Amino acid sequence: MQQCYGGIIRRQRHFISCLGGDHRKTLLSVTRMQSVMNPTLEADALSILRSISPTLDSTKHKGQAGKIAVVGGCREYTGAPYFSAISALKIGADLSHVICTRDAAPVIKSYSPELIVHPLLEESYSVRDEDRKSVGTLVLAEVDKWMERFDCLVIGPGLGRDPFLLDCVSDIMKHARRSNVPMVIDGDGLFLVTNRLDLVSGYPLAVLTPNVNEYKRLVQKVLNCEVNDQDGPQQLLSLANSIGGVTILRKGQSDYISDGKEVRSVSILGSPRRCGGQGDILSGSVAVFLAWARQLVGKEGPTINPAMLGCIAGSALMRKAASLAFEDKKRSTLTSDIIEYLGRSLEDICPVR
Amino acid sequence: MQQCYGGIIRRQRHFISCLGGDHRKTLLSVTRMQSVMNPTLEADALSILRSISPTLDSTKHKGQAGKIAVVGGCREYTGAPYFSAISALKIGADLSHVICTRDAAPVIKSYSPELIVHPLLEESYSVRDEDRKSVGTLVLAEVDKWMERFDCLVIGPGLGRDPFLLDCVSDIMKHARRSNVPMVIDGDGLFLVTNRLDLVSGYPLAVLTPNVNEYKRLVQKVLNCEVNDQDGPQQLLSLANSIGGVTILRKGQSDYISDGKEVRSVSILGSPRRCGGQGDILSGSVAVFLAWARQLVGKEGPTINPAMLGCIAGSALMRKAASLAFEDKKRSTLTSDIIEYLGRSLEDICPVR
Repeated sequence: MQQCYGGIIRRQRHFISCLGGDHRKTLLSVTRMQSVMNPTLEADALSILRSISPTLDSTKHKGQAGKIAVVGGCREYTGAPYFSAISALKIGADLSHVICTRDAAPVIKSYSPELIVHPLLEESYSVRDEDRKSVGTLVLAEVDKWMERFDCLVIGPGLGRDPFLLDCVSDIMKHARRSNVPMVIDGDGLFLVTNRLDLVSGYPLAVLTPNVNEYKRLVQKVLNCEVNDQDGPQQLLSLANSIGGVTILRKGQSDYISDGKEVRSVSILGSPRRCGGQGDILSGSVAVFLAWARQLVGKEGPTINPAMLGCIAGSALMRKAASLAFEDKKRSTLTSDIIEYLGRSLEDICPVR
Repeated sequence: MQQCYGGIIRRQRHFISCLGGDHRKTLLSVTRMQSVMNPTLEADALSILRSISPTLDSTKHKGQAGKIAVVGGCREYTGAPYFSAISALKIGADLSHVICTRDAAPVIKSYSPELIVHPLLEESYSVRDEDRKSVGTLVLAEVDKWMERFDCLVIGPGLGRDPFLLDCVSDIMKHARRSNVPMVIDGDGLFLVTNRLDLVSGYPLAVLTPNVNEYKRLVQKVLNCEVNDQDGPQQLLSLANSIGGVTILRKGQSDYISDGKEVRSVSILGSPRRCGGQGDILSGSVAVFLAWARQLVGKEGPTINPAMLGCIAGSALMRKAASLAFEDKKRSTLTSDIIEYLGRSLEDICPVR
């Protein structure tokens, strides 16, 4: 994504003004207690989304608007990685990859010719015990060839819980971290990191996106207590802080987002339909916005946490698209219907100039 | 589906009023002879559908509106389980699974990323004689991992008639029954239970949805006589009663439904097109409505048979959608077209509040 943003200084100024003057006051410099006790945690999500979305012009070339890879898809699950990867494309990424098992690849490829699907992973049933080490090394080497090209990984959609597969994915995550590639972790990826906190602990480019149950397990594991909804934002802040400043997007009636320094909420109207797969749209969306925000923030601008910005923008877009899809399809709204509304939602919020 | 229904008492009252005052008079307390001799067997199907459909609001989370699993799909048949499972989603279930053979899975997956497809079953051709016992045990163990999560099973769409496969499915049915999971049985599932009545006999959460020929075989097997159309409702009542109070939905020009205690009919205008696959839409629909009705009835409400309610609502919705699809597509109406009208039909009957 080098040279991705023309007129970057101008846009930085716009960004700061969108966030209400001194953005550091708005986003970062709030103290922990101020942030939590403030009744208006609500982020100005639409302004943030507008501020981090790159302009489009004819000087750009393929890849500059983002290259995302979803690590997920096994014999059992194929829909989830597709939803995540296609959402990234529909939001504006230039290339969207899926790294999945051999058996999952033909099915995921068949959902869409737009995706680049790598049949690189293996599950235990397809590898003899004595071959595990060599196969693991080979998988890692193959994924590593691509690592530097990715602007963000999504780890977990439809990953399954096969122990050998999860071992390989742990290694991929270590390499991604070493290469400073951001990671959005959802679904079975959260199962993995809840049991292997070292994989993300202290990595500021890691984003966790737990639903109700996944959040509960994280809180139990990390804070050694139960979820406390009376003091939800403070507990979320503690949780993110305890995992060394990763960003956590807690999905719910409102989405709450914290990086251990501050908490923000996004409550834009969404959809009351809870069909499976919506979390995958969100993970793909956050990945794209995080990559965009990171590019913007990295350029001599103020140090705003791009993971926070990516989560806020991703949550806002997902909610808006779900609400439009529900208006149209009502009770029969499916995840594919919401994906079809990503484009219009983006255009409503952030029209192409 | 815990806590799925807010304001349940209010809705129960509405439900009772929809059924015409004292619903027990309307639905359950009618004597067998009254019910059969009454020329107006017609159920108030639209009111029933409205009464059992859950409200949608933003406090709910994934799974509360129902998790359905279709057991079916083999090397030969893949369309039927897809139609059944996708219909369940389009009506409003949150998750829809298919449990099928290994060969059928990639094809069913490729129809839609919305379904969770488990390649768990095996046919005789893929299992050596000496391995049958161990493979059967393994299949059952795998399915059992999921059983408690399902609110209703559909047994039979595209199941085929392979003896080893049917043995495995018999075992799955026994486990479902032990776990009190409702079952809607159609297609090759009806072939199975016609020869193994013990699988459903006396189980009030079993629903059979026979077409003309399947009904004929059931009558011959159970009542040891031929179908008597002069006294159709009485014979249906006797049949359901003889199988120990299972609910039977006899598909035809009008659909007739009995649980051995009463008979109801649904005659809402449908479609004159008889393309294959419509029965699969019906089985998926009945599964969702049964799960919803069971949830509603289970909550300190009156003991109305949720299987009857599920059948009446499923039949009504299917007929309405088929009629709308036929109006649009005429002679070229296919099952997929009818599925596309499930959402609008639901919204016409039971608008989202």
